[in-house]
Amino acid sequence: MADAPQGMTTPQGGRITVSVDAMGGDEGPAAVIAGCALSAARNDRIAFILHGDEAALTPLLAEFASLRGITRIVHSPDVVSMDDKPANVMRHGRATSMWACLSAVQDGAAQAAVSCGNTGALMAVSMLRLRKLRGVHRPAIACLWPSRGRSGFNTMLDVGADVRADEESLLQYALMGAAYYRNAFDAPRPRVGLLNVGTEEHKGRAEIKEAARLIADAAAIGRYDFVGFVEGNDLPAEHVDVIVTDGFTGNIALKTAEGTAKLIGERMRAELTATLWSRLSAGLASGPLRRFKRSMDPRRMNGGVFLGLNGTVVKSHGSADATGVSAAIKLAFRLAESRFQERMADRLAKVADGLHQQTLDEANPPDAADDEPGEAKA
Amino acid sequence: MADAPQGMTTPQGGRITVSVDAMGGDEGPAAVIAGCALSAARNDRIAFILHGDEAALTPLLAEFASLRGITRIVHSPDVVSMDDKPANVMRHGRATSMWACLSAVQDGAAQAAVSCGNTGALMAVSMLRLRKLRGVHRPAIACLWPSRGRSGFNTMLDVGADVRADEESLLQYALMGAAYYRNAFDAPRPRVGLLNVGTEEHKGRAEIKEAARLIADAAAIGRYDFVGFVEGNDLPAEHVDVIVTDGFTGNIALKTAEGTAKLIGERMRAELTATLWSRLSAGLASGPLRRFKRSMDPRRMNGGVFLGLNGTVVKSHGSADATGVSAAIKLAFRLAESRFQERMADRLAKVADGLHQQTLDEANPPDAADDEPGEAKA
Repeated sequence: MADAPQGMTTPQGGRITVSVDAMGGDEGPAAVIAGCALSAARNDRIAFILHGDEAALTPLLAEFASLRGITRIVHSPDVVSMDDKPANVMRHGRATSMWACLSAVQDGAAQAAVSCGNTGALMAVSMLRLRKLRGVHRPAIACLWPSRGRSGFNTMLDVGADVRADEESLLQYALMGAAYYRNAFDAPRPRVGLLNVGTEEHKGRAEIKEAARLIADAAAIGRYDFVGFVEGNDLPAEHVDVIVTDGFTGNIALKTAEGTAKLIGERMRAELTATLWSRLSAGLASGPLRRFKRSMDPRRMNGGVFLGLNGTVVKSHGSADATGVSAAIKLAFRLAESRFQERMADRLAKVADGLHQQTLDEANPPDAADDEPGEAKA
Repeated sequence: MADAPQGMTTPQGGRITVSVDAMGGDEGPAAVIAGCALSAARNDRIAFILHGDEAALTPLLAEFASLRGITRIVHSPDVVSMDDKPANVMRHGRATSMWACLSAVQDGAAQAAVSCGNTGALMAVSMLRLRKLRGVHRPAIACLWPSRGRSGFNTMLDVGADVRADEESLLQYALMGAAYYRNAFDAPRPRVGLLNVGTEEHKGRAEIKEAARLIADAAAIGRYDFVGFVEGNDLPAEHVDVIVTDGFTGNIALKTAEGTAKLIGERMRAELTATLWSRLSAGLASGPLRRFKRSMDPRRMNGGVFLGLNGTVVKSHGSADATGVSAAIKLAFRLAESRFQERMADRLAKVADGLHQQTLDEANPPDAADDEPGEAKA
């Protein structure tokens, strides 16, 4: 198997190894390691490499029996902080746990990487270490969204890798998002929608109308159904699985939803604890209220997947606790196991070749084939 | 007062007349007239002109004693439907209730207009009948947002008048939004934030960084404080009152928040009615749950204000009931009463003159003043 793609080799013993940046999150390595332990307790086909300060990690690791024998610590002296500029980390970050975490995927020691660290730095180092997939203009970050649909989740991308996206990038997001959703949720033919300010064909910016045409044309190669434009209130809708947008709009939609849910939660708590009677009656209703809270638990939605790289990278929320980290690890495991990267790379290359051919055809229409070069000029 | 600006004359008897498109909403004229009656019962300085089918409106009007003597019906045979294209309404819509509703503001019979109708058509006809304020590139639509702040509301603009906005348009939105917020909520010095994907200065698109500079520079003339970049989760924040963004992003943020709130409401209802015990306990907690629902009631937030026109136009939600229509009417009344349009127009003109002067200075820097025309060229 000397020619297997990097990061795609199946490890010995049939286990899939997840490379974990143990130092990245706001909650420190204890939460990260507890998340690994939660995953290990539920999944007997997983193994871990933990990157970080060995002296800090060793005693934490010893606390979890479920991690024994399947976890290896690799010492990294430095840590990327939340304020570090991505360009700085690219230049001076070789000794950080984030860098080592991605290197383990690059050299094939692990099949996926998970970090709770600084998103910008993680994307920059991921691009440096893993490189973009052939034909990808820009990697994208895909997030999960609570949905009324069968799987309970929709995905939206890009949510912040790049603040601009032209029509070809939006097409690539459709292809990558469909491949991701298919493998994460066993959905053979995901439904792709393009985020816009209205569902009518004439609505929105020019590049979005053009992207709609490209995405519709590539549906057969990409093995998805294109449902056309969707609006902000359709993000949890049942009739769509993958929502495509540029990283500026996607980031603002994601944070707007988080902010709205937080405000609603605060107001509900305030009313349910306002008076003694409120507290008593809320106590009696605690069963359904707890189930409601669980159904909306943002920790279940944790995990921004970086798409378009030679390797699987999952960004866990900076403030994730053990449950959140475990959700991100589960996602990384599932994607690594599905080996969808290779098939996605094939589809991207096919569509890119098609677009390139079309551009050549447009530049040299058949009628103009006999023209002498330069003849059109005076 | 022959030279008072159109639409700004105070009517006889000290009442402010609101021109209402009675035919626009999904709920039909009964909901609109009931909304007028709610407002009239609480406000003894309001009067109405109702536009629509006289035969349909007359019996509905007779049901409300509070509207007697302060309401006049003006017959319009046609209605703009939700599917009508704006360009079509501009060409063939003269006999519609929407057109007549705006004409009443244009000819000074009313001081503000309210419609539940088709947003695109309402904006198109508003621009045609009322014309843009001097110096305004593009009118904007401002919406209300539930907030943790003192007034309970933030405002965001543009939420869909225009899918693009350059840096000068974003500056105008800041000036118009601050003027609106000041007068709607008695806030002498509103705090303006610019929506972006991060709060750090280096984040975001080029036109947004440039807009931040322009908005900061115009703070003294615009009588606002600029708080810099804000993110999607800051839309309900206490540290900002006016959130500036382009109409594409604003529309998607608004609808994302609506969709999120709706999903949360559905899930809460589902859990609270799942079993007999859930229903019983939810019944006991009905007081706090009802207060919670009221505090998040989207009807209180009803009313998209069109800014940048020679006249006050409030777009009520198409599905608004009487309570929602009454909230939109209250907003229209308050803005008409404050006569803020004139002062806003002055500030816009001052800032536009300043920008124009700056452009001239940059084109002819003092050092180059003695250069012969064309000398710089070969």
